[in-house]
Amino acid sequence: GYGRFGIMYNDNDSNALLDSSTDLTSRMRLQIDATAESDAGVVFGARARIQADGNGTTNGAGADFNGVRYFARSGGFEVGVGNIFGALESMPGQYPVDMGLTGLGYDYTAFDGNGDAYTSTGDGALNGVEVLYSAGDLAVHVSASDVSDRVAGYVAYTWSGWTFAVGGQDSDNAGDTEWTATAGGSFGIADVTLAYADNGTNGDRVILAGRFDVGAATDVEVYVGDQDGADTGYGIDFNHDLGGGTSLRGGVVKQFDGDTVADMGVRFNF
Amino acid sequence: GYGRFGIMYNDNDSNALLDSSTDLTSRMRLQIDATAESDAGVVFGARARIQADGNGTTNGAGADFNGVRYFARSGGFEVGVGNIFGALESMPGQYPVDMGLTGLGYDYTAFDGNGDAYTSTGDGALNGVEVLYSAGDLAVHVSASDVSDRVAGYVAYTWSGWTFAVGGQDSDNAGDTEWTATAGGSFGIADVTLAYADNGTNGDRVILAGRFDVGAATDVEVYVGDQDGADTGYGIDFNHDLGGGTSLRGGVVKQFDGDTVADMGVRFNF
Amino acid sequence: GYGRFGIMYNDNDSNALLDSSTDLTSRMRLQIDATAESDAGVVFGARARIQADGNGTTNGAGADFNGVRYFARSGGFEVGVGNIFGALESMPGQYPVDMGLTGLGYDYTAFDGNGDAYTSTGDGALNGVEVLYSAGDLAVHVSASDVSDRVAGYVAYTWSGWTFAVGGQDSDNAGDTEWTATAGGSFGIADVTLAYADNGTNGDRVILAGRFDVGAATDVEVYVGDQDGADTGYGIDFNHDLGGGTSLRGGVVKQFDGDTVADMGVRFNF
Repeated sequence: GYGRFGIMYNDNDSNALLDSSTDLTSRMRLQIDATAESDAGVVFGARARIQADGNGTTNGAGADFNGVRYFARSGGFEVGVGNIFGALESMPGQYPVDMGLTGLGYDYTAFDGNGDAYTSTGDGALNGVEVLYSAGDLAVHVSASDVSDRVAGYVAYTWSGWTFAVGGQDSDNAGDTEWTATAGGSFGIADVTLAYADNGTNGDRVILAGRFDVGAATDVEVYVGDQDGADTGYGIDFNHDLGGGTSLRGGVVKQFDGDTVADMGVRFNF
Repeated sequence: GYGRFGIMYNDNDSNALLDSSTDLTSRMRLQIDATAESDAGVVFGARARIQADGNGTTNGAGADFNGVRYFARSGGFEVGVGNIFGALESMPGQYPVDMGLTGLGYDYTAFDGNGDAYTSTGDGALNGVEVLYSAGDLAVHVSASDVSDRVAGYVAYTWSGWTFAVGGQDSDNAGDTEWTATAGGSFGIADVTLAYADNGTNGDRVILAGRFDVGAATDVEVYVGDQDGADTGYGIDFNHDLGGGTSLRGGVVKQFDGDTVADMGVRFNF
Repeated sequence: GYGRFGIMYNDNDSNALLDSSTDLTSRMRLQIDATAESDAGVVFGARARIQADGNGTTNGAGADFNGVRYFARSGGFEVGVGNIFGALESMPGQYPVDMGLTGLGYDYTAFDGNGDAYTSTGDGALNGVEVLYSAGDLAVHVSASDVSDRVAGYVAYTWSGWTFAVGGQDSDNAGDTEWTATAGGSFGIADVTLAYADNGTNGDRVILAGRFDVGAATDVEVYVGDQDGADTGYGIDFNHDLGGGTSLRGGVVKQFDGDTVADMGVRFNF
């Protein structure tokens, strides 16, 4: 797992009733991966998390198990049930950067969570089932659940260092993602990702994001995004590696909802 | 602990309002056994579990500690307090088989839970205390709690590979088990158990159960049961060892309440 | 962490509606300390606990994470945020003894919890921040939180085996501690502590406490206390080391509220 703590600022411009706020932000994530391997080499396992999230109103007390994901894996083939990862959530290019200490709203995720996704503090998809397959440069992921009868999938292929992925979804929810496509790779000085998603009644979203190394231990990430019905969103952050699994992180983001948010702090893996 | 996941079917015949259902079933059990040993050789310890149970309506999110059992043990003598095991629950012959992946209702438990028992997801007996003693072929277990002022005990003796046990209970609850007796052993091709319990106003129950090895890694379990006020219940299952602490399991049971239930899936120990 | 279990008696004289009671008392504390160290030698870490407390009405089921404390430490300097320790709670002399198995009410804590303090089962101080510094015989601790806008601090100095500490606090709560002072050291046959606190509208409290070794593995602790508006309180206990991190403990206390309470049991560290 990991821990992180720092300061979070929000101008709260999207809510006329709120002043700007500056509060502590913190998280402790304890991840429990339990596995066993059959004589035939099939790995069976379960993953659960206890994640305590702190902010201006709590230090995270009361954290308990999230929904559990179970899997059976053999070679490049994996079947998962329970709190599934979800095909769209797992698709390359949906999380092209990791803004600041906390993600700062994750506006840069093209499909915007309009599909099944692993949750660290909730229960996850109901009767969720998924199949993952990878072979060389090819990756395929199909997931389904009782949540709006979602069925989703993606296919990704990596060619000369560039990864192209296309995903689609069928569901009973008009606001769910219809289809999404991403392309990402390296220009030498920068890793760049372009992502698009048709999120039904939640509108289209286009994201352009990049990561630049600016020193032996530091990188800078930026993104700019266009969302139907919202002003342009953008953000910039830095990650400075302190060694030993520790890092200093911070960023500033203009969110689609109009808020400007910023954070800075320390993350450590354990 | 262990994990398991698979499919559960229930025809729900006992409830006219329900159709049959087929859902995921899953469990992740994290067991925490913490002990310390005094210079005199007395072992003090505590056992707690975090158990996440998944089904058609949840992946088990929110799992937290059950009631804790504490103990002091020296040689064949043990005192337990808190979420106690309970004498009747621990008596040889009460769990002669373990049907399918999930137990499939545990109708084959003669005393039918009408006494104090360790619980993996609840709090357990209030002010529970128990004493366990074993010496050679003899085992004695007495337990008491503030739940209906229960006092229960059993004596078991093993003779030429057969184990005979008799248990009794005094309580303020008319539906609690009055007395129960079991006999179990091996006929070579099969392990067989016969169990009887007088469960007060919950009626008498008689169970005949057996386990047969049908291959190097596979066994089949069967039971037939008679319960006052219900049709005959019966069930059959298989357990196939996959090695490395993993197994494939499944079964079908006709329950005393009229439901037919079936399950199949994988279990792995960690 | 540790476990403990035993018997607790309370005459409940402070409540005319209650008879005396004798119940099980138990606790299982699971402490999770997760840390990582940067290349520059700064240690980042998080501490969380899952603590199950049992008594006459529960075996502690439902225990989950408390509020998390995060810290960055380098040499004798430490910054903590979240569920902070709190300066007054951490001040030398505030916990001069540890009565019986359970603390028996902690009346012997001069500042009486009228300040920020680490909690093992709750959330702790909101937006809590603290700085700890120690160098040789000097220790300084300053803490602040959004709880009544508390700011508190202490300075402690150790001289020839005696530790003197003075603490003060500013807050919006008239019942919070204003200032407190303690002195503690050894007379050879006994460790003795004298502590005073001005707890605002909660009155002054003076405590005299001592610990005596009465054998190679046994000590006896006593205290006598004066609290504004209450009769004199006092208590005596014993701790007998059983080796291997296990001990037998028990005590009797006359509390400021008029109750006489007693406990006895076993504690084991793991």
